[in-house]
Amino acid sequence: MSVTKILLDESEIPTHWYNVVADMPNPPAPYLGPDGKPVPPEAMAAIFPMPLLEQEMSSERWIKIPDEVREVYRLWRPSPLFRAHRLEAMLGTPAKIYYKYEGVSPAGSHKPNTAIPQAYYNKICGIKRLSTETGAGQWGCSLALAGSMFGLEVRVYMVKISYQQKPYRRSMMQTWGAEVLASPTNLTNAGRQILAQDPDNPGSLGIAISEAVEEAASRADTNYALGSVLNHVLLHQTVIGLETKKQLEKVGDYPDVIFAPCGGGSNVGGMMFPFVADKAAGKNIRLVPVEPTSCPTLTRGHYAYDYGDSVGLTPLMLMYTLGHDFMPPGIHAGGLRYHGDSALVSQLCKEGVLEALAVPQVATFKAGVLFAKAEGIVPAPESCHAACAAIDEALRCKATGESKTILFTLSGHGHFDMGAYDRYLSGELEDYDYPDEAIRAALDHLPKVG
Amino acid sequence: MSVTKILLDESEIPTHWYNVVADMPNPPAPYLGPDGKPVPPEAMAAIFPMPLLEQEMSSERWIKIPDEVREVYRLWRPSPLFRAHRLEAMLGTPAKIYYKYEGVSPAGSHKPNTAIPQAYYNKICGIKRLSTETGAGQWGCSLALAGSMFGLEVRVYMVKISYQQKPYRRSMMQTWGAEVLASPTNLTNAGRQILAQDPDNPGSLGIAISEAVEEAASRADTNYALGSVLNHVLLHQTVIGLETKKQLEKVGDYPDVIFAPCGGGSNVGGMMFPFVADKAAGKNIRLVPVEPTSCPTLTRGHYAYDYGDSVGLTPLMLMYTLGHDFMPPGIHAGGLRYHGDSALVSQLCKEGVLEALAVPQVATFKAGVLFAKAEGIVPAPESCHAACAAIDEALRCKATGESKTILFTLSGHGHFDMGAYDRYLSGELEDYDYPDEAIRAALDHLPKVG
Repeated sequence: MSVTKILLDESEIPTHWYNVVADMPNPPAPYLGPDGKPVPPEAMAAIFPMPLLEQEMSSERWIKIPDEVREVYRLWRPSPLFRAHRLEAMLGTPAKIYYKYEGVSPAGSHKPNTAIPQAYYNKICGIKRLSTETGAGQWGCSLALAGSMFGLEVRVYMVKISYQQKPYRRSMMQTWGAEVLASPTNLTNAGRQILAQDPDNPGSLGIAISEAVEEAASRADTNYALGSVLNHVLLHQTVIGLETKKQLEKVGDYPDVIFAPCGGGSNVGGMMFPFVADKAAGKNIRLVPVEPTSCPTLTRGHYAYDYGDSVGLTPLMLMYTLGHDFMPPGIHAGGLRYHGDSALVSQLCKEGVLEALAVPQVATFKAGVLFAKAEGIVPAPESCHAACAAIDEALRCKATGESKTILFTLSGHGHFDMGAYDRYLSGELEDYDYPDEAIRAALDHLPKVG
Repeated sequence: MSVTKILLDESEIPTHWYNVVADMPNPPAPYLGPDGKPVPPEAMAAIFPMPLLEQEMSSERWIKIPDEVREVYRLWRPSPLFRAHRLEAMLGTPAKIYYKYEGVSPAGSHKPNTAIPQAYYNKICGIKRLSTETGAGQWGCSLALAGSMFGLEVRVYMVKISYQQKPYRRSMMQTWGAEVLASPTNLTNAGRQILAQDPDNPGSLGIAISEAVEEAASRADTNYALGSVLNHVLLHQTVIGLETKKQLEKVGDYPDVIFAPCGGGSNVGGMMFPFVADKAAGKNIRLVPVEPTSCPTLTRGHYAYDYGDSVGLTPLMLMYTLGHDFMPPGIHAGGLRYHGDSALVSQLCKEGVLEALAVPQVATFKAGVLFAKAEGIVPAPESCHAACAAIDEALRCKATGESKTILFTLSGHGHFDMGAYDRYLSGELEDYDYPDEAIRAALDHLPKVG
């Protein structure tokens, strides 16, 4: 049997992040203000440090990873690339299946890849505190970890209902020294307004973002950090794809198709952007973001200018969107419940470089259980989306006899999601779908530009 | 900075397990029946396959690891050895600290190192089903994983109170396809007897063992599997120490002292036994099992023949024991709540090869939080015991200026133990201690031999 885990030495951690802007067919559409004019980086300097804003706007192909960031990456990177021998055998497919496992980070997902550099750049710019929001706690954990690595205070506004119902990720953030508050709080105007109207408000990601941004904007020692969507976030995640390319080279292979789960786009950017240049150069490779049918942004959304958050605080971004007030159902892949998508991922979909796919919830858990029985690792619900698409592709290969090379991102483990598996195993999970009219109606809610 | 993660290629997974019996100062004391006569292996053949019973009694120094077992080990082994640069810096110690991280297994601890070969040997002996018991679920998960790898049915008797209060490890076992029952059940005589007296009995590890053993003894297609204490279990775990020796060789280092958490002894045997021969050959190395002060088997127990289980089903083993009916308090390091200890570990302690240490619960969580802030990984409560001892030793080195090389086993992650961290962080945890009279009283409960 050929190798199972393709490892790299820590000296092989990439030295530079890859900026896909340099290889896109067209330059990215600018962020706009409500007046229709491009938003300059300085307009966001109250909440982000300049090095991150420069990365946000950069078109340089390679951006150096600071040594201090690579030092912390060494705690878990390079992450392993697995050849899924046992899954292939279980499926009886002639296809080769590889998965890149990001669950080896201390926080259990790919999110620390950007939390660490974000904390670092804030630190060197003299910032003492970071504020952020979290739903179930995946991103909050990653930023708490990053804060502990660079000696920054971290305050996390955690959606109150998750704070109460999912205490374990809260405990993990606190273990790393972060302060975790149940949002809405009475510490911000945004929170106080909500509580005045409804003292028992269970919170939402939109409210928590408003609180975290308000705090960052109003305190000189404090900045805000975001875990997906923005260009600099996707840039930091490209260590995933860059390592994967090296690992596949070691075994003399190259993917015919890549799947990654897609919510805000940081998994997709992280794994797929380093392959975009190859595709532009003529490589025959399919790059497939996988989203839930219950939140079908790329597959059924509109390509239009919209807000990145649900309350309209951010600049307008040209992206696929279901409308910034779209409220997806409470599926267990919480990281994929986002009304919009990264502007870069959206534009590459629009231009046909990426081709999105939507899969229903129950099928993703079926795939997750199959994967766990074959390969051992219990995947996060988000990761189950990519596993599901990869398994379907492998079964198509079985039908056609093709021995394609399939690659997917196993973005995290499911250790904090066993309640979701429980519901799947006891037959309580359901799928959601939307009538076309509901999708079309979202058009009425898109903001007017200019 | 020198290397952080010392990795081995999967071709460097050990080819043989190491049997410490070959290098012990004296041969191990035999297992005895209540009549005082040695128990022959065949007496246990109703519940264990012969290859495991042969290993249990073997004095061969090296025992070949089957290729089929090494194939499955490749899913996560060799596990990484970390140099704890960040922890050293945080402590300001001149000592070098290394930790071997076993939490990378799909089940999250070192337990699959033995679950996998146990499932394999049962499979090749024609067994179709395995039964076992589990408390919080760590061992049950490992055997469920092993069953899924070799196509064996697994039934886990899970202590009812844990089944109800800690559902997530139950879900994990079910995800891997195991059947999980809340013990006591009405499927066994043992369970029925308990339920007849007390229908609301919350269960105990002793009852669950009785149920699992009864099932295995009464069905020809079913065997029993145990996760610690026995010689063959410790044998399988020696992959930990064997890999660690190779990893330290790569960086030209050798430990002055090794710490491992000690409950039934499988961590201690796994890491330390491969160093026992070096010590016998004159190497100056301290080998220190670390147990909780609330269950001070090695540090305050009696060295005597006692039962391995709480109800008296097993042969009598010469070991340190607090008496087989000793009920330790409900500390969070559930894996260390065992009244006795491996006979091999006990004998090596008695002979001065190992020197045991006990640490109190609150100090272990303090060490766990410090470790998480420095190194990222949140340790299991059991692992916190070894981390605590290693940190104390490093601080002693700081006081004396010695640059010792300290090694410890980080046997698992704490992802399913965040409730315990929560209690620590909110100041609710407490320590337990025993008056000498209570320890002496246990003598009255030791079984009469012969």
